[in-house]
Amino acid sequence: MQTITNKLGEWSYVIGPYKEPVGSVKPGEIFKIETLDAFGNQVDSSTSDITKLIKMPFVNPLTGPIYVEGAQKGDALAVTIISVETTRDYGVSAIIPEFGGLCATPLTRTLNTPLPPRVMIYPIEDNSVIFSRDLNIAPIPYEPFYGTIGTAPEIEAISSLSPGSHGGNMDAADVCPGNTILLPVNVDGGFLYIGDGHAAQGDAEVCGVATEIPTKGTLKVDLIKGLSLRNPRVESEEFIMTIGSARPMEDAARIAFYELIMWLESDYGIEKLVAYQLCSQVARVRLANMVDTLYSVVAKFPKKYLPR
Amino acid sequence: MQTITNKLGEWSYVIGPYKEPVGSVKPGEIFKIETLDAFGNQVDSSTSDITKLIKMPFVNPLTGPIYVEGAQKGDALAVTIISVETTRDYGVSAIIPEFGGLCATPLTRTLNTPLPPRVMIYPIEDNSVIFSRDLNIAPIPYEPFYGTIGTAPEIEAISSLSPGSHGGNMDAADVCPGNTILLPVNVDGGFLYIGDGHAAQGDAEVCGVATEIPTKGTLKVDLIKGLSLRNPRVESEEFIMTIGSARPMEDAARIAFYELIMWLESDYGIEKLVAYQLCSQVARVRLANMVDTLYSVVAKFPKKYLPR
Amino acid sequence: MQTITNKLGEWSYVIGPYKEPVGSVKPGEIFKIETLDAFGNQVDSSTSDITKLIKMPFVNPLTGPIYVEGAQKGDALAVTIISVETTRDYGVSAIIPEFGGLCATPLTRTLNTPLPPRVMIYPIEDNSVIFSRDLNIAPIPYEPFYGTIGTAPEIEAISSLSPGSHGGNMDAADVCPGNTILLPVNVDGGFLYIGDGHAAQGDAEVCGVATEIPTKGTLKVDLIKGLSLRNPRVESEEFIMTIGSARPMEDAARIAFYELIMWLESDYGIEKLVAYQLCSQVARVRLANMVDTLYSVVAKFPKKYLPR
Amino acid sequence: MQTITNKLGEWSYVIGPYKEPVGSVKPGEIFKIETLDAFGNQVDSSTSDITKLIKMPFVNPLTGPIYVEGAQKGDALAVTIISVETTRDYGVSAIIPEFGGLCATPLTRTLNTPLPPRVMIYPIEDNSVIFSRDLNIAPIPYEPFYGTIGTAPEIEAISSLSPGSHGGNMDAADVCPGNTILLPVNVDGGFLYIGDGHAAQGDAEVCGVATEIPTKGTLKVDLIKGLSLRNPRVESEEFIMTIGSARPMEDAARIAFYELIMWLESDYGIEKLVAYQLCSQVARVRLANMVDTLYSVVAKFPKKYLPR
Repeated sequence: MQTITNKLGEWSYVIGPYKEPVGSVKPGEIFKIETLDAFGNQVDSSTSDITKLIKMPFVNPLTGPIYVEGAQKGDALAVTIISVETTRDYGVSAIIPEFGGLCATPLTRTLNTPLPPRVMIYPIEDNSVIFSRDLNIAPIPYEPFYGTIGTAPEIEAISSLSPGSHGGNMDAADVCPGNTILLPVNVDGGFLYIGDGHAAQGDAEVCGVATEIPTKGTLKVDLIKGLSLRNPRVESEEFIMTIGSARPMEDAARIAFYELIMWLESDYGIEKLVAYQLCSQVARVRLANMVDTLYSVVAKFPKKYLPR
Repeated sequence: MQTITNKLGEWSYVIGPYKEPVGSVKPGEIFKIETLDAFGNQVDSSTSDITKLIKMPFVNPLTGPIYVEGAQKGDALAVTIISVETTRDYGVSAIIPEFGGLCATPLTRTLNTPLPPRVMIYPIEDNSVIFSRDLNIAPIPYEPFYGTIGTAPEIEAISSLSPGSHGGNMDAADVCPGNTILLPVNVDGGFLYIGDGHAAQGDAEVCGVATEIPTKGTLKVDLIKGLSLRNPRVESEEFIMTIGSARPMEDAARIAFYELIMWLESDYGIEKLVAYQLCSQVARVRLANMVDTLYSVVAKFPKKYLPR
Repeated sequence: MQTITNKLGEWSYVIGPYKEPVGSVKPGEIFKIETLDAFGNQVDSSTSDITKLIKMPFVNPLTGPIYVEGAQKGDALAVTIISVETTRDYGVSAIIPEFGGLCATPLTRTLNTPLPPRVMIYPIEDNSVIFSRDLNIAPIPYEPFYGTIGTAPEIEAISSLSPGSHGGNMDAADVCPGNTILLPVNVDGGFLYIGDGHAAQGDAEVCGVATEIPTKGTLKVDLIKGLSLRNPRVESEEFIMTIGSARPMEDAARIAFYELIMWLESDYGIEKLVAYQLCSQVARVRLANMVDTLYSVVAKFPKKYLPR
Repeated sequence: MQTITNKLGEWSYVIGPYKEPVGSVKPGEIFKIETLDAFGNQVDSSTSDITKLIKMPFVNPLTGPIYVEGAQKGDALAVTIISVETTRDYGVSAIIPEFGGLCATPLTRTLNTPLPPRVMIYPIEDNSVIFSRDLNIAPIPYEPFYGTIGTAPEIEAISSLSPGSHGGNMDAADVCPGNTILLPVNVDGGFLYIGDGHAAQGDAEVCGVATEIPTKGTLKVDLIKGLSLRNPRVESEEFIMTIGSARPMEDAARIAFYELIMWLESDYGIEKLVAYQLCSQVARVRLANMVDTLYSVVAKFPKKYLPR
């Protein structure tokens, strides 16, 4: 089984078509990747000021682009996450002064004084994240996923900090082992990028930082010829899901539900206004992030309510 | 046990201090209420055009105001929902042309043609809601709650269609049997209003209408002297929760998380930036509605992660 | 000519149908009003902390309700502002810690430290506002208008701090001498409220406070029978204008332009998609406020481009 | 005087660092550019369906990148627009079904039926745009400007349809002859892109399309060493201006005012809370666009109120 990763100093900070692939996979092939954490593995217990490590735009390094053989514009990639292992016995987190859901940021500007920076180191042991022994907080289950996964737009190169219709930095905990993520193909080979491993994360990722880990992941990429997607989809044992990323947040929710309803109509034969009604009775929603350049909302339809 | 309800033709369509109480309860007293559905029990299988029944602003009739003895400005009401029974063997739902999460509305105006109106009747039987026998959709569990619950502001009278810091039309499925809702008191007696029973509802209530039912409910109201609340709180066995209602939706999420973090600091001794970090790892979010005059977001903290 | 004002201690802090009229006018009658400033005339050069004077919800006192004879639900009031005189030789302004366009507020909550409070006293002399002699800023022309003007909703009572479809606290500098404001009538007599005089204000009223003055104003109210309005309109010599108040701000702009286009179609015979195109070439926009509970946007169509 | 333009088939549809410059200028040099209209000069009176001409992402072709000698990361370009001539005796406009301020779009998704497409041809004669002889609308003055002007980010390549901190598709009528636009430099040579000529445009560009023209423009680019900009600035005879582009629209306004206040503090010595207060009394705002991927707001400070 091959392992794909980027060379030292050649990590990707944009998702786009302009960089040479760092590896190539066949549809259906199982392979491994290695990823850095969102801070490029630079943070440890000696880090006093996180802001000194953040050198924009070189944040959130991604592994990729990965070339998928046979992928052409108008197809979709179906990326199954088989497993995500942390390669470090701790995760890092932080308060970043002008980043997060409850502070002024460069996009929601105010004249208030920024929050003070902080760095947190969370040990990972016994399949759990230890938030604080002092406060005696119960161990948090290790439930890893990739915060960032996406495919290259045709001509744009999008910051690895941004989510969008190409996937990207959605911070959706549904991008986890056992689930399959569907992404649009816009260029030959699809150009898949992945990174930003999280050992644990709350809905909304409210302070902007999860329990950030470097990973070794095992993936499989299938190719769905001729499936043209406007936005990412996810499938789990329990749900079919669509992800909308936009600002304001209601626009992210609108995109997610629109795509879910169109999917219910096209693939399951539920006329769209009926699907709209049905979602109004049974849908579930995950607020994936309220902190990134676009907010991400996951609309989830329980498979048990699909027509039998 | 007393039963409180409004007289025919005297239902409340605003939540405010200007109407005489329709009943009075003592703190700790268990009592019953009767409520109409959001359409005033006017819709049935003969209804051809829902828009003819909707006579703004007389939509979403509420039971109340209920006077709580001893309640004074600066206190909080703790309303425990003991049970919610439907008093009809079907729920109603609808597509309303200029109301909902995926259509143009009077607040998000466009020049597109409005959606066509529709009325749906969903039988309730064997503790389930039957969405469609034709499509063979699995029965949806009867999981009732009150879409609207709130207390009078000091001088404003707010439409029963609006959520806000006073509670109101939040459409939060956490206002359900077993849970306790904390609401601010702004006037003597608190002036509690309640209604808008739902037999089932998806997160976001995307089309704007749940499975609407008239109810007979059993409640208990406790009084918490001197607890001054800025926004509603909910407590269940599993979670402490705060609800923010605002537009855009990110502002609703900001309010909810701000209140949750302040609560974790004031009552559980977790310094606020630590609470912010902890929420970023373990919080859950419910998008309660994306359709009302303000959107409602519930921020949920799992009690198992409270300091032990 | 009669003068209408409220008695001491009986100012209006909500716009609603629940208060007895303080005066009555006939359609076409010219009359005077007296208004307090937004802080109830309590601020002067000895005020050290503005936050101690603000006792929510008793802010922004309005004169009214004024009963307009013959006004009935479904009519419109046409309020012409004839003149606005300051009754004090200075205006007051302020930085209010959790209010304004560039700071965290109770609606856009963050964990940042609030801004410090400040009070400013601006002399008014020679028909100008003196911002600062120290900084040698040129005198600002005295261009007075009413920040708040509105009519009662049918059953709601809306805070005098809020704008909306009823008018209210729009902070639109177009509500000035020479212009006519059209407002919906929802109750017998219309119940007009007015106040919040400004001697000068920038677009957006960015810090949340203009040069606030008590006034003596001269008005005329005409009655337009059967003109049912969804939102306020303004007419000046140069423009026809519509005002949308909503959050997010794009929704305010959508409402304003929708109403403008519907007006161009209904009264000037320009088919709505043509009007949409024409507005795209010649419309002007005023951002009236970015600080109130809803943002207000004025869409303006230059009369010179009306069909001749 | 040199003329810079792109070769046939080599127009730029992203603003980024990945394309070879098409020309080079020295600081202070006066030069000409040629630009296509936003539809690539493809629309004429025979166009029946605009949607068939729009082949995303190849819309809004730009001239550039133009290399500015000596420009380095951390500098600013000061681009003075000397003149903008239309090279065609008509402008084109359109209703595009899922694009515009008053319709559902891919970012504000709804289930409503899209608007019908339309194409408009507006003759330009006697320095005026002729909107409609049938409706007898007064000629609209020819007041040309560039809808799109920007500099390459360091590693991102941003669609020519998007505005942002790099400038881009702001649709701000202040980018006009006589004014100077300041843009950040992120890569050697700055990489200036320009296009999207408009013969006339209303504030907000409400339907999404102005009077679109191909142009021959005359420009001068000066280099300001060491001026690090977060967002674009504009200077005219009357105003200093800053432009914020974001969603929701209030965030665009926040950015614009924040930058204006910081500029007043850094260059004119007005302490920031005083500048905030002063803007609240005298600022002007242009809503540049309410239709693009981000909305653009121009905050304008009248020079006559600068300290003397």
